[in-house]
Amino acid sequence: MDGERELKELGEKKILSDEIYDGAIMHVFRDTVTLPDGKKAYRELIRHVGAVCIIPVTDDNRVIVERQFRYPIDKVITEIPAGKLNFPEENRLEAAKRELLEETGICADIWTDLGVFYPAAAYSDEKITMYLARGLHFGESRPDEDEFLTLCAVPLAELLCDVTEGKITDAKTQLAVLKAARILGI
Amino acid sequence: MDGERELKELGEKKILSDEIYDGAIMHVFRDTVTLPDGKKAYRELIRHVGAVCIIPVTDDNRVIVERQFRYPIDKVITEIPAGKLNFPEENRLEAAKRELLEETGICADIWTDLGVFYPAAAYSDEKITMYLARGLHFGESRPDEDEFLTLCAVPLAELLCDVTEGKITDAKTQLAVLKAARILGI
Repeated sequence: MDGERELKELGEKKILSDEIYDGAIMHVFRDTVTLPDGKKAYRELIRHVGAVCIIPVTDDNRVIVERQFRYPIDKVITEIPAGKLNFPEENRLEAAKRELLEETGICADIWTDLGVFYPAAAYSDEKITMYLARGLHFGESRPDEDEFLTLCAVPLAELLCDVTEGKITDAKTQLAVLKAARILGI
Repeated sequence: MDGERELKELGEKKILSDEIYDGAIMHVFRDTVTLPDGKKAYRELIRHVGAVCIIPVTDDNRVIVERQFRYPIDKVITEIPAGKLNFPEENRLEAAKRELLEETGICADIWTDLGVFYPAAAYSDEKITMYLARGLHFGESRPDEDEFLTLCAVPLAELLCDVTEGKITDAKTQLAVLKAARILGI
């Protein structure tokens, strides 16, 4: 099916947008839309500034990951470095370099774009761009004031097992490990 | 580091929880927390009922995917079947069987648990359990009243290329394709 016809058959049109909450990271709306059959429905959604994430891999195929507390799920989990854009149009590679440096103190010589993904397209417009970073140089990390995390270097092969065995539960980290393993032949 | 000590060093404690919005799919809170250093901070978050997603693979390794309009990103995208739980404690395998049947009309003989993931642990407690469904029997789909979608059968190998080339942007679908490809040796 061509794109235009598909959009006509499946698309929804905005009638009204009600702002519910404008917070520090969360901008919540309840929109009224017209469905493809002409009926009216409501869509609750978050507008998000966008984000980047980075899987930093050392020359001997270890990944620098973070142990970080995530309040919504009340757990410390293993994640790759990531962060929000400073503004929607920010250059995503520049943002990735900044976030990697701030969180881990790492600069990288080689950057590979691993593509974009929408973590929760049903209710959030957040778009995350993923990068593989290699040729790493280690310096001092400078996390944000309210950011507490522990860094560890874990072999990519071990992380791949952890993903398969359900020990890694963060979506972007599962994705990055699976993609990097394919690229690096692990 | 052991779990208890890690939680003490990295964990945050709830002081207060303010309900911002109680919608149809979205329950938004702004909580006041104590950081590990004793300072106060705010956490905006969504409480979500939980969800399941299913990658249904035919005997000749084609995947049944959906083309579905996602209002927050204003795009028709390719996704595997998925749906919310009816209530938080619902049996996730039963929910997966129901959602697969409703959206695609498919019953499956063989179910493999591919693990859980948090799509956006920074601001949502949504937990998704992923299943691989094989031994498929095709019947009539019964999508929800406000659900419009088109079904297609795409070779898993082709979807894998689409993931690598950035043509699949839905996080759970990227994940399911990468996991299924590993399991099925593609």
